[in-house]
Amino acid sequence: MPRWEPDALGRLQDAALTLFARQGYAGTTTAEIAAQAGLSERTFFNHFANKHDVLFGRTSEAFLQAVTQGVHDAPDDATPLDAVVHGLRAAADVLEGHQPAAARRRQIIEATPELREREEGKSARLVDSVAVALQDRGAAPDQAFLTARAGVVVQQTADAWWTRPGNAEPLRDLVVAALDALRGVVGP
Amino acid sequence: MPRWEPDALGRLQDAALTLFARQGYAGTTTAEIAAQAGLSERTFFNHFANKHDVLFGRTSEAFLQAVTQGVHDAPDDATPLDAVVHGLRAAADVLEGHQPAAARRRQIIEATPELREREEGKSARLVDSVAVALQDRGAAPDQAFLTARAGVVVQQTADAWWTRPGNAEPLRDLVVAALDALRGVVGP
Repeated sequence: MPRWEPDALGRLQDAALTLFARQGYAGTTTAEIAAQAGLSERTFFNHFANKHDVLFGRTSEAFLQAVTQGVHDAPDDATPLDAVVHGLRAAADVLEGHQPAAARRRQIIEATPELREREEGKSARLVDSVAVALQDRGAAPDQAFLTARAGVVVQQTADAWWTRPGNAEPLRDLVVAALDALRGVVGP
Repeated sequence: MPRWEPDALGRLQDAALTLFARQGYAGTTTAEIAAQAGLSERTFFNHFANKHDVLFGRTSEAFLQAVTQGVHDAPDDATPLDAVVHGLRAAADVLEGHQPAAARRRQIIEATPELREREEGKSARLVDSVAVALQDRGAAPDQAFLTARAGVVVQQTADAWWTRPGNAEPLRDLVVAALDALRGVVGP
């Protein structure tokens, strides 16, 4: 049985973000993260499979499921894109308390090309899950994939704005602002 | 000096696609690819850094540069999205002769979640390069990134249609069709 450590998860995340920012992602070991958090490396591995998992683990998974569920739960008469936006807004609530950590995480990812590719790669699963949910709602496959991709652009844009230094707007509202901006860019 | 082998590059690519399709990407070694092509493993490494490079190497790089150059070369009065589409259509000509190989490549990528993520991750560089080119044309950073992301959706959609079994339409035309479809999905 692992020893219970108060908020070990939060302390490890905070320690990892501190060290990644200070000495780079590649230059940080799991042993250093554990030491910075005042915990054992064993405790680290009770919570994360590796240091990659600190940045791309559980929150991503919960977010993906919340989006997909939100697409399913959208009103029957919603257009496919509106159903995706419904899902993104529902999922925004999952993230809302995590803005400070998300902003720190983004700075690390933007500074590291390898992590940028991983972050972008994650969207493959979001596109696939949303496309399946849209097909369950009756969309044709081509329309479902294109709408899912457009929805991911909305999400990526809203997320970039939300994690910007000094931002105070909730992610839920920024999703709608990003949709409007996409409409402006794509034009008639 | 490496011995000159007639069309070693093409033979290695063909051998790799054959083996990836037959026995999976993970289950194929560079030695097997070289043997299937009737070449030495040393010749393989004269052309590719590793087996990943067969799928994600030189064509991707040439495509990226052609898109960026095409954005720069778009008419001065083109909107940002039209400039991106100009770049995508110019870059389509780089790929046009490679449709059969691209179709085989896509089947392998779609069958392998790890490769799907890599493929999606590649778009990080395309987004960044196109966003820089748009800012050189005078777009504000937010608009540049959003437009670049919308352009990547157009490109991914056109590419999916182009590599579909039985497709006979040129990629250049499918870029325009994908833009129209995106406009339909995003709506007014």
